Amino acid sequence: MPKRKEKPIILITNDDGVTAPGIKNLVEAVKDLGKVVVVAPDKPQSGMGHAITIGSPLRLNAVTYFEGIEAYSCTGTPVDCVKLAVDKVLHRKPDICLSGINHGANHSINVIYSGTMSAAVEAAIESIPSIGFSLLDYSIEADFSAAAVYARKITELVLAKKLDKHLVLNVNFPAVPEDQIKGIKICRQAYAKYQEDFLERQDPHGRRYYWLTGEFMNFDKGRDTDVWALQNNYVSVVPVQFDLTNYVLKSKLEKSWKH
Amino acid sequence: MPKRKEKPIILITNDDGVTAPGIKNLVEAVKDLGKVVVVAPDKPQSGMGHAITIGSPLRLNAVTYFEGIEAYSCTGTPVDCVKLAVDKVLHRKPDICLSGINHGANHSINVIYSGTMSAAVEAAIESIPSIGFSLLDYSIEADFSAAAVYARKITELVLAKKLDKHLVLNVNFPAVPEDQIKGIKICRQAYAKYQEDFLERQDPHGRRYYWLTGEFMNFDKGRDTDVWALQNNYVSVVPVQFDLTNYVLKSKLEKSWKH
Repeated sequence: MPKRKEKPIILITNDDGVTAPGIKNLVEAVKDLGKVVVVAPDKPQSGMGHAITIGSPLRLNAVTYFEGIEAYSCTGTPVDCVKLAVDKVLHRKPDICLSGINHGANHSINVIYSGTMSAAVEAAIESIPSIGFSLLDYSIEADFSAAAVYARKITELVLAKKLDKHLVLNVNFPAVPEDQIKGIKICRQAYAKYQEDFLERQDPHGRRYYWLTGEFMNFDKGRDTDVWALQNNYVSVVPVQFDLTNYVLKSKLEKSWKH
Repeated sequence: MPKRKEKPIILITNDDGVTAPGIKNLVEAVKDLGKVVVVAPDKPQSGMGHAITIGSPLRLNAVTYFEGIEAYSCTGTPVDCVKLAVDKVLHRKPDICLSGINHGANHSINVIYSGTMSAAVEAAIESIPSIGFSLLDYSIEADFSAAAVYARKITELVLAKKLDKHLVLNVNFPAVPEDQIKGIKICRQAYAKYQEDFLERQDPHGRRYYWLTGEFMNFDKGRDTDVWALQNNYVSVVPVQFDLTNYVLKSKLEKSWKH
């Protein structure tokens, strides 16, 4: 008789903070697929990228936001949450790490700025397959119902077949009802960026300060990108890597630099 | 007669803060190669990764640490410094962006956590060729003399030949005198990571807190990696990319997921 399979341990984090509706929706969507444990930031950490906390200590506090689910808020960044969860909460590697559902897009170049995605990448560095989920709606009242259906589906696909212990997926959902979603599309990261335009203001003492603003610009006309997929109402899935070596440029340099 | 070439504009930043010896050494090493402008964090920002400041405003303050050089301290992250420098200080793209010289290694997986490297990557996203420099010595009294020689040499190589507008190099220097350096080696990023081990303590009120510590572990036996090069007293140069798509995994997923 085959050995009864143990329930997978599912670590869930995010960057919008433990009280964000997005993480609640994600927990609800997958909680019967395994034993869910939540370790998420105690405050919004959007745009934190792969920041870690070196110069100050971290704290964990048990929270009861998620009925019947072991959950903690953490004073650190999303990446800190993953590190602390593995070392001090789970005392082992979870079977999968899910991050999100983020309020707002993390397609294209956003993968680099996103705390949601950096948490997922951190898990993958630790050989924990992971998925970052993001919905193209910043609103606190965003409708996560279609996103939740697809987040569950993609989590099941990843749990069912071990493709790579360093697997990281950057999954984005278009902000449309479920019946308008055309399916899941495996994509590459679009070449797109922000055109910065800092707003300049003066404080009451006459000193200048600046607010970061920027216009998103997609320079990539490919129909195989995440931006294209989302514009066409597909769920975009970009597999992500943390070997940042540019092998093409490496060859060029080897030829070009005589030393 | 050929048009007289204008001096290149060299933007310099770092993550150890504007008063760190490493940035002073970098400025001194390259200041006659072009017009140098410094915009660097007003406090240490190590481990900030690609964090950007969204929820609070930023300030710039002129500083006089660098004789005869236009310089500003910025209240934001290293990536904020690059964005603000281009938009509000230079009002144009510099010809090159240099980041460092970092006090401490940024080889292998450190490229992801490093504010020094994230500043360089941010410049490259903006089509500004860039180089991050790091010395394998954390000390405030580190000897930057050999690093300065090689930083200048590599900056000249990059300025001399436009190989790629998105060029980013992750350059690390072994902490040895110049006569022990065997040369420059173009490498790939080693697969290495930290084994986390949070120190657990109790505050005076009996509540627990955690300090991030970790042991660096290199799992990569390749002789073409940055870690190998540095162990063998080479200056390591890893070309870096910001397209994080894992194309190998993309093909696997396309075959494996039926949908």
